[in-house]
Amino acid sequence: MALLVTKFGGTSVASLERIKNVALRLKDMKEKGNDVVAVVSAMGDTTDELIDLAKLTGDNLAPREMDMLLSTGEQQSAALLALTLQNMNCDAISLTGWQAGIKSDDKHSKAKISEINTERLRAELAKGRIVIVAGFQGISPCGDITTLGRGGSDTTAVAIAAALKADRCLIFTDVDGVYTADPRIVPEARKLSQISYEEMLEMASLGAGVLQSRSVEFAMLYGVDVEVLSSFNFNPGTLVTEVKNMEKQRVVCGVADDRNCARFALFDVPDVPGIAMKIFKALAKENINVDMVIQSAMRDNRNDIAFTIERDDLKRAVPVVQKVVKEISASGFSYADDVAKVSIVGAGMQTNPGVAADMFEALAEENINIHMISTSEIKVSCVIDEKELEKAVRVLHKKFELDKIE
Amino acid sequence: MALLVTKFGGTSVASLERIKNVALRLKDMKEKGNDVVAVVSAMGDTTDELIDLAKLTGDNLAPREMDMLLSTGEQQSAALLALTLQNMNCDAISLTGWQAGIKSDDKHSKAKISEINTERLRAELAKGRIVIVAGFQGISPCGDITTLGRGGSDTTAVAIAAALKADRCLIFTDVDGVYTADPRIVPEARKLSQISYEEMLEMASLGAGVLQSRSVEFAMLYGVDVEVLSSFNFNPGTLVTEVKNMEKQRVVCGVADDRNCARFALFDVPDVPGIAMKIFKALAKENINVDMVIQSAMRDNRNDIAFTIERDDLKRAVPVVQKVVKEISASGFSYADDVAKVSIVGAGMQTNPGVAADMFEALAEENINIHMISTSEIKVSCVIDEKELEKAVRVLHKKFELDKIE
Repeated sequence: MALLVTKFGGTSVASLERIKNVALRLKDMKEKGNDVVAVVSAMGDTTDELIDLAKLTGDNLAPREMDMLLSTGEQQSAALLALTLQNMNCDAISLTGWQAGIKSDDKHSKAKISEINTERLRAELAKGRIVIVAGFQGISPCGDITTLGRGGSDTTAVAIAAALKADRCLIFTDVDGVYTADPRIVPEARKLSQISYEEMLEMASLGAGVLQSRSVEFAMLYGVDVEVLSSFNFNPGTLVTEVKNMEKQRVVCGVADDRNCARFALFDVPDVPGIAMKIFKALAKENINVDMVIQSAMRDNRNDIAFTIERDDLKRAVPVVQKVVKEISASGFSYADDVAKVSIVGAGMQTNPGVAADMFEALAEENINIHMISTSEIKVSCVIDEKELEKAVRVLHKKFELDKIE
Repeated sequence: MALLVTKFGGTSVASLERIKNVALRLKDMKEKGNDVVAVVSAMGDTTDELIDLAKLTGDNLAPREMDMLLSTGEQQSAALLALTLQNMNCDAISLTGWQAGIKSDDKHSKAKISEINTERLRAELAKGRIVIVAGFQGISPCGDITTLGRGGSDTTAVAIAAALKADRCLIFTDVDGVYTADPRIVPEARKLSQISYEEMLEMASLGAGVLQSRSVEFAMLYGVDVEVLSSFNFNPGTLVTEVKNMEKQRVVCGVADDRNCARFALFDVPDVPGIAMKIFKALAKENINVDMVIQSAMRDNRNDIAFTIERDDLKRAVPVVQKVVKEISASGFSYADDVAKVSIVGAGMQTNPGVAADMFEALAEENINIHMISTSEIKVSCVIDEKELEKAVRVLHKKFELDKIE
C-alpha cells in the first residue's frame, strides 16, 4: 500500500467524459489498496474564458480579484470529480486550496506556497476517501485566496506529496512522458524512462512544457519522486528523480526547441560601468525577462550588446529599449522576431568536455548560423534563425545518438 | 451618512453590461457619503448550468459537493463586480461567504446562518471600500462551504444588515416593489409604498416571489428595514417594515395568485386516531410539503380527506399516496392539477371580522366555485379551478378597492 499524490491537468478534465476516465483511474488505484490524493486543474479553457470575461470590466485587473475569480475554475472541477467518484460508489471529497491547508504568501497571481497544514488532508485520507484538491491556489496570511500562477497545479501536487511524504507524485498530462526531442519534429525521438531533477529543470525552462519549472525545483528540494505520464493511455511514463550514479549519466539526454524568442541588438553602447544595468533594470521593471546576453568586443570604448527576451514580450519591450538607447547615447538598436533557440541538455556534460564543440560542429556542417550561445553546467543553447530550427533539432538528435538512448 | 446593505439578484448581474449598471449605482451611493455593502447572486443562469453539469455525473448528487460547486457562481460575480468598480476608480473588494464571516450549520444545500463575524466586513468598510459579498453561502462548523438554498442571497443581505446594524437593506430585483396584485393579471394593480413584515411574509409564502420568506422572517426578527426596488429603473420601491399603528392598517393589502398547486382527495378514510398522520408523515419523508388540509364530516366512522401540495411535487406524491391508501384501507383517491390558489392578505383583518365572508361573496357572485378554504390571522386562501384564477384575482382586487390604495 502506497500513498500516491496525482495531478490531472486541464486537458485531462476538459469534459465530463474525461473526468469519468480520471475517476476510473483513481478508483482503480484506490482499490489496489493505495491512499490517493488527486490535484486537479480547471476544466479545459475555463481559466482563459474567465480572463476574457474579466477583461470586459476594463484594463485594471487587480491580481487579488483575479485570484478570487480564477480560483473558481479548479473548485468546480474538483467538485465535479468528487461527484463522479461518488456516483461510482467510491468515497471521495473535494477540498479548495485553503481547505487543504495550502498556505501561501500574498503575491497574488504568482503566490508561493509557504506551508501546508496537512491536518484535514490526513483526516480525510484516514476515512478511506479519495481526496480531491483544487490545484493552483492557496490562502494568504490575511485569509485571501491566492493563485500560484500558470501551471501552479503541478506545484500544488508536488508540495502536497512532499508534505504528506507520499511515495510518489504522478503528474498526468496529455503527453506520456519526457522525450529526447519533440516527436512532431523528430519522429524517432524516444521517451526517457528516467531523468534527473537538474536535467528536467533545464528541459522545463527551455520550453519542453511538460512540467512547470517551479514544481521541479520543489521536487528536487524535497526529494519527491515525480512520474510524468499520460491520462489518455496506460503507457509507462518518465520518472523524474535523483540520479545518484554520476558514471551512468548520459552525456546528452534531450534536444529542446523554443520559438518564444526575440533578439535585440544595441549599437555603440558607451563602455561605462552600470550602462548594461540600465537596460536590464528598465526591462525588469516592466516584468520582461532577459534570457541570453552577449557583449561584443570593445571598439573605441563602445560596445555592441545583444540579448534575447520571450517573443511574447517583444511589443512591450520595444518602447522600453528605445527610451534607454536615447538615455545612454547608444547609436541605435535593432530587433528580430524570426529567431529561435535550440538547446542540448544532459547531466553528463559536466564531466565530458567537448560537448559544446560537437554541437557547434554539427550545426556548422548543415550551414546553420549561430547568433548567440549560452551555456550552463548541463546545457548548451544556441540562438539561430527560426527557419533552421527543425533542421537543427534533427541534426543534434542524430549527432548525439538520442534515437538509441535507453 | 448611512450604512446601506444592498442585494442584487441573478437577473441584475446577468451580463457584464448589467454588472456595470450595478457598479454605477453602488458608486453613486458611496459618493453620496454612505458606507456600502453589496450582496450578489450568481450571474443569470450560472447556477442552473452548474446543476446541469453535475447531473451528468450521475443521480447521486451529494449536497456537500453541490455546495462546493454552486458557491463558485456567486464568487465569480462578486469578483467581477469588484473589478468593474475598481475600473471605475472606486475602491472595492469581494469576499466569499466565509471571508465575510457568515457561519452556518452543516445542513448542506439549505443551511441556516448561525452567526456573522463582522470583523473583516467592518475592517474593509473602514478602509472606505465598497464590500461585495458572495450571496447564498456560508461556512459550516467543520470548515465546509454551505449554501443557504435558492433565494438565499436575500437572507445573506438581511443577515448582514442585522449584524452590522445597517440603516437599511435594499433588495434590488427585476420588479420595482410589492404590488397589490400581479400587474400582468390586474393592470390597475398598485405598488405599495409600505408593507408590514407579517403581510410580506404571507405574500412571500403565497407565491408573490419578490422576497424569500426566510429573509422576511430574519428581517422581522431583527427589525431590519428592507426596501424592495428595481435594479433597472430609479422608481421608489416598497418598504417592508414594522407597522406600529394598528388603526392605520389596511384591511386587505394584496391579492396573491399561485398556480403551483395540486389537490388530492382520499375517500372513506377510517376515523381512527393517527390515520391522517400516516399520510402526512409519508409525504414529509419524501420532502413533500402539504399546504391546506380538509377533513369532511364523518359518515359511518369514515371520513373524506383532501389536501393540497405544490404542483411540482405531484409526480413524486402519487405513488406515496397510493401506497398509504392501501395501508390504511381507504376506498380510493383522486388528484387534480388544474386547481390554483387565490388569497387575500392584510394585517387589518384581525380587527375587521367579515373580510372572509366578503371574499366568498365576491367569488360566488362570479360563479367561482371554492374547493377548499384556509385562513390565518392575516390572510384567507381559496382553492379554485385554475381556469377561474385570473378572473378571481380581478374580482377580489376590485371588491377590496385595491386600485385606490395609497
